[in-house]
This record gives sequence, C-alpha cells and structure tokens, in this order.
Amino acid sequence: MTARKVVVQKYGGSSLASAEKIRSVAKKICDRRAAGIDLVVTVSAMGDTTDDLITLAKSVLGAGHVPDPREMDTLLSTGELVSAALVAMAIRSMGYDVVSLSGPQAGIRTDTTHGAARISEVDTGRLSRELAAGRIVIVAGFQGLAETEDITTLGRGASDLTAVAIAAGLKAHRCEIYTDVEGIYTADPRLVPEARKLVEIGYEEMLELASLGAKMNPRSIELGAVYEVPILVASTFDDKPGTLIHGEASMMEVRKAVTGIAVTRNVAKITAPALPDIPGVAADIFEPLAAAGINVDVIIQSASAGGKADISFTVADGDLERALAITKTSRACADHNVMGGRGYAKVSIVGTGITNSPGYASRMFRALAAAGVNIDMITTSEIRITCIVESGQVEKAARALHQAFELQEASAG
Amino acid sequence: MTARKVVVQKYGGSSLASAEKIRSVAKKICDRRAAGIDLVVTVSAMGDTTDDLITLAKSVLGAGHVPDPREMDTLLSTGELVSAALVAMAIRSMGYDVVSLSGPQAGIRTDTTHGAARISEVDTGRLSRELAAGRIVIVAGFQGLAETEDITTLGRGASDLTAVAIAAGLKAHRCEIYTDVEGIYTADPRLVPEARKLVEIGYEEMLELASLGAKMNPRSIELGAVYEVPILVASTFDDKPGTLIHGEASMMEVRKAVTGIAVTRNVAKITAPALPDIPGVAADIFEPLAAAGINVDVIIQSASAGGKADISFTVADGDLERALAITKTSRACADHNVMGGRGYAKVSIVGTGITNSPGYASRMFRALAAAGVNIDMITTSEIRITCIVESGQVEKAARALHQAFELQEASAG
Repeated sequence: MTARKVVVQKYGGSSLASAEKIRSVAKKICDRRAAGIDLVVTVSAMGDTTDDLITLAKSVLGAGHVPDPREMDTLLSTGELVSAALVAMAIRSMGYDVVSLSGPQAGIRTDTTHGAARISEVDTGRLSRELAAGRIVIVAGFQGLAETEDITTLGRGASDLTAVAIAAGLKAHRCEIYTDVEGIYTADPRLVPEARKLVEIGYEEMLELASLGAKMNPRSIELGAVYEVPILVASTFDDKPGTLIHGEASMMEVRKAVTGIAVTRNVAKITAPALPDIPGVAADIFEPLAAAGINVDVIIQSASAGGKADISFTVADGDLERALAITKTSRACADHNVMGGRGYAKVSIVGTGITNSPGYASRMFRALAAAGVNIDMITTSEIRITCIVESGQVEKAARALHQAFELQEASAG
Repeated sequence: MTARKVVVQKYGGSSLASAEKIRSVAKKICDRRAAGIDLVVTVSAMGDTTDDLITLAKSVLGAGHVPDPREMDTLLSTGELVSAALVAMAIRSMGYDVVSLSGPQAGIRTDTTHGAARISEVDTGRLSRELAAGRIVIVAGFQGLAETEDITTLGRGASDLTAVAIAAGLKAHRCEIYTDVEGIYTADPRLVPEARKLVEIGYEEMLELASLGAKMNPRSIELGAVYEVPILVASTFDDKPGTLIHGEASMMEVRKAVTGIAVTRNVAKITAPALPDIPGVAADIFEPLAAAGINVDVIIQSASAGGKADISFTVADGDLERALAITKTSRACADHNVMGGRGYAKVSIVGTGITNSPGYASRMFRALAAAGVNIDMITTSEIRITCIVESGQVEKAARALHQAFELQEASAG
C-alpha cells in the first residue's frame, strides 16, 4: 500500500472576507482534491472579524479595563470556527466529503499562555482518521487546547503556525500558505518597484525577513525549519507559482549572497548617555522595560568620554512614551539626560551568503552613503545587517540596496 | 459543613443584545453573588446573532443548497460562546472571580442528532470544581458534545434546556429563566389586556402552555418536571417576582381549575372527506407526511354518510402546499376530494382542574358561542381543551374565555 500524498493548506482572512470568496476558496480546495491529494486546510477568521470581536470586548468593558486573557481567547477563537464551518459547508455543497474541526478537535495542544500560547503537541489521531475516511479536513486556525481544557489562541497571525504544526505532525508533503500576495519578494514592491518574486528561499533567511516585516508568522518559519516542512507562499486567487521556503539550495537558481531587503517603519529611539561603565547598568535599564511588556529591538552600547557609556535602543513607535518614562526612572539613568524620539525606520539586507563575508557590510554602507542616506545605528546577525535610518529616507535606502546587490535580476534560467 | 445554595440562571438573547445590556446582566449576576449564592449562568447568543449566522451560511451556499447539519451546529455554537466570554469579561471587570465554559466544557453530553440533539448526560465534574473554587460559572447555552466529539446544538430556544439540565445535574436550589417578559400570564397580554401574571404554575400546565406558544422551551419544562427543578420565569431588567413553575400546589394561592389561555396562529387545515372506513386509511395518509418531516397537529376523524369517514387535520401555515400535495397522492385519498385552507388559529384552555371535570368543555363552548365565535374543530387532552377557530376570531375568543373562567381576578390574598 502506497501512502497517499498529504498537503496542508492555509487560507488567510482576506481570502475569506465574503461569501463569494469563501466559495472561490472551496472551489480551489475541491479542484486540488480532485487531483488525488489528501488535504488538511487551516483557515483564519473572515476579513476583519478578529478586530471586530476585540472592539466588541472593549465596548463591553469600557475604558480602562483590560479583557481577561482566558475569556478573550474563547471570544476570538469563534472567528476561525465560523470560517471553518462555512468553508466546509461550501465544499460539501460541491459534492466532496468534508469535516470541519476546531483547534482542540484537531489535536492542537498548547501551554496555558492565553493570547500567545505555544503549541506543545499535535495529536494527529482524529486528523488521520478523517483523512483515512476520505474526507477533506478544515481546521480552525489560531487556536488550541491547554492541559486545563481551556481554549487558547496562538497570537495574531498564527493560523500559519497551525498549518505548519499540522504539516509537521502529519509528515505532510508540504504546507501551502495562500494569501493576498504572490509570494516572497526581494523587497516590498510598494517601496521598490523593481522588486522580484523569489522562486525559493531558505528557512533562516525567511525567518529574518519575517521578523523584519514580511507577511509571515516568524514562529511558523521556525517550526518549519525544525521539522523540515517545505512551505509554499502563494496567492489565493491566481495560479502563479509562489515562493517555496525550504532547507536546501535548489540547483535551479544560482544563489545570491543577499536574498532580500526588509524594511520596518514606526521605530522610535531612546538614548541614555554617559552612564557609569559598571556591571549591572544595562540590566537596570532593560529589566523594568521587560516587566512592562515593552519589546526592545536594536540595542547598542558604546563607550563615551571619561569612562562613561552611552546606551541606545529602539522600541515600537507606540511604546515610546511609556518606555521613556520607565527608562528615566530606572536606577542607572536617574541622574542622566535620557532622550527619545520618533521618526526612524529599519532597513536590512538578509542572506545566508552574508555569513563570514565582511565585504557585504561595507558594500551596504557605501551604497547608502552614495544615495545620501545617513545611518543612525547599525546591528548585525549571522545572516542580516540592519541600519536604523530616518523614516523619510527608508524608501531611497531600500531602492539603493536593491540595486547595489543586483536583486532585480532574475537568477534562474 | 453546610452545602452552599446553588442557583442556575439563564439570560436570553434579547437581554444580551448590546454591550450596555451585557454590563447590566453582569451587574445583576454580581449582585446576586454578593448575596452569597453560588451561580451557574447560561447565556444565549446576543440579539439576532443566530439569525445572522444562518443568513451568512445561506449566502455562502446559494439558493437550493441545504447546509450540512454538523457544520451548521459548529457555526451556530459560536454565538453563545461570544456571549459567554463577554459576560465573563464584564463580571471580572466588576471584581468577581468568573470563568466561561462552552457547552462541551460544561459537560453537556448529547446524542448525535445535529440541529436538535437531546441531552444524554450532564457531567458536572468541571462545573462543581469551578464552583468549589469560588467562581461564578458562565455557560454557553444551546450546545453540547456528542460521543463523536462533535459539537451539537439542541434546537432553537434550547438555552433554557441547558439551564434546566445543569440545575438538575447540580441538584440546584432552582433554575431562573430571565427574559423580556415578566413571567407566565393567564393569556397573551397583547391579545387579552386583562391577562394576569401567575405567581406559580404546575409543570404539566406549563408544558401545555409552552407547547401552545408561550415563550418557553417545552423540553426544558419536561426536564424540570422529571428532575423536580423549580423554574422561575422573570424579567431581566426589573425586580418583579415572576412566575414559579414547580410541582406542588402552593398554600398561598387558591387553585383555579383553568390556569391560562393559549393561542397559536398560522394554522392551516386539510380535510379528506368520504374515505373508506377500513383499517389502514389513517396510516396511509399520515405516514407519507411524517416521512416528509411535516408536523401534523390536531387530527379528527368522524363518520360520514354511507360507511365513509372524514379525516381533518391541521399543519403549520408554511407546510400547507407540501402537505396538500402529499395527501392528494396518498393511497387512501387518490380518488377523493381533498381540500385545504389557511386562516385558522387554535385557542386552548389549560389547567389541571380540567381533568375529570366535564363541565369545562361545555362552559368553553358556551362562552365561544356567546361571543359569536364559530368552532371548527375540537381536541382535548387530560389538562387542555383546544378549539380551532377562524384566525380573525381568535382575539375575541381568547378574551371571552379569559372572562368566562375569571382569570383576570388575582387569586392570592
């Protein structure tokens, strides 16, 4: 007996935003099934449903009350249940056998961190039984069941994660993420018109791009890398090939050192100058920020005159006031002139070729200088170099880098 | 150790139709909790949510497709989950410990009849644990879990049933149904302005009234009777006493023979005249109707001239055309002159005192005759006498009967 090929698909909220779009998605699923593939399909909530539910909760609670995270999870999980049931109904009306499952029914087990639960296990028992019975299985994304038998959600955009986790659990042929873009680009086409769609990209590179604003859930890429699940990102409503995220360099494409350019806007910067250069200063600053749930991104510490150190770091725009207030009252900064400001952006080059190749950094800085872009802060990882620049200059910077690293040229024959 | 008093409450959809109403319900629950009562609260979907979800499913499927019942149950169950989470959030914001549970989490186990599942068991394990932990428990009504681990719904209006079933399972002090009416009346106040709110009513009488159109789920009354759960029906947003449905005649109230008048509109009548008076004729007529899912209500068979029999029966207005077509082609009627027509209504008197008291029937017929109301068909049960009359005469009929049986007079001192 030959095992049938299992493919896990995921359709995002914009692909399911109306009755008509739901029918189109159902048709696409049926066509794929007709080709002899066993399908598990993860769906997000329709259109703006999740935002609408959050608004509803806020209007019930009134200003100043934070919704209970456990109850919020129960509330938000209903959006994906609605999509799953509707997609299943549409498929059945087209003559295919189908069943919808909630995250808990699909065996998604999580820890108890409501609002941002991590998947601990995928119990594939029921999924396998439904597939063996010849059914298409529609799974409500974004949700799971904790050991406490409470419903959890996995965080915004985490229906991708559900799909990849199920693909890993079922050892599926691959996971296909259908969305409103045609794939992964060398840069955001709205910023860089010459941007080119990638045929393929490695997990690590994709992880950097995803963390830097590409429309993919970074945790799903991480999980895909660990379980070696090939992930295709493609458009829901056309048949163009999309981008395959996987672990092996293809023979089809001559590899470039830099795979893509990523841009993140709405960055704010805080600088605490002339701090005493003694152990514990950084901890004094960043512990209270972490305790307040503020995500600190780039951190740079540099020596300043007279045995003192400057510490600069970036936070999201919306967190600036809170971060500034906390930093000013932190022990290390109490007597110092802490400054903060908006209007920054991050521009990054990403590529596995960057590793151990010092030439890329200087080429990046030279290209930015030639374009008249001033670099405010620099930070690097193994496969990424990021510059903080003024927000108004980020488009110019992205275009200059795209050209400098010759990303506009198709690399496959 | 003295066991604390447990009360199960239920709030209907019209009581939860807006953020403001949800806060009012939460406040009412908190006030009751503050009085030292352990509370389990069952909620319906907000306002028109269930109808909106049905409309959504229809728009996805298009005309001519019937939604899959299993998927429909998953879809509709989300409405009550949303209410439950929102009510729980509101209660928590008022400083009380609370948890919301879906029907499955609350231990409601059912058979697999999607759309009209019957409760097979209430596993009170988690409910009891949550109560023991000092929490108010909010339960999504109308839904349960089948042995197949699929979500089921119990039928329209069945959140009442969830509440009574939980009250029975927990051996609660009583079940309180809060709604947009102040209680059970001797007749519909819109038809009979003199109608009086009842202080109490027996299960059997209430069951007849509920089957005849009073705003209560008949199955919940049945279940209350079997498990002897006292059920209070009262208004959500005032503090008037409501009506207690229970099994014992109260010493407080001098019992009347007739408890109330019930009216059902939109009745259609079909008559198959001059049928051969031989065994099997009735089965020939009613078996195909049952197979088509048409609910036949009043059935009357009478002898006509020449050893023939006439059979008349009523169906809901909306079923008339289908029922007529089926009846005309049934074996017994093939050669006979089957007639059907709209424009009928049922008016009934209900009361345990009717049993073994033949005087009530003649008093009813006399009152209707005196009011100029023509009786088309008559049917009786142990505690009910029903007359089919012309629709245009039903208000006059209800008022005449209300007066004839002196229901307007308060009977308690």
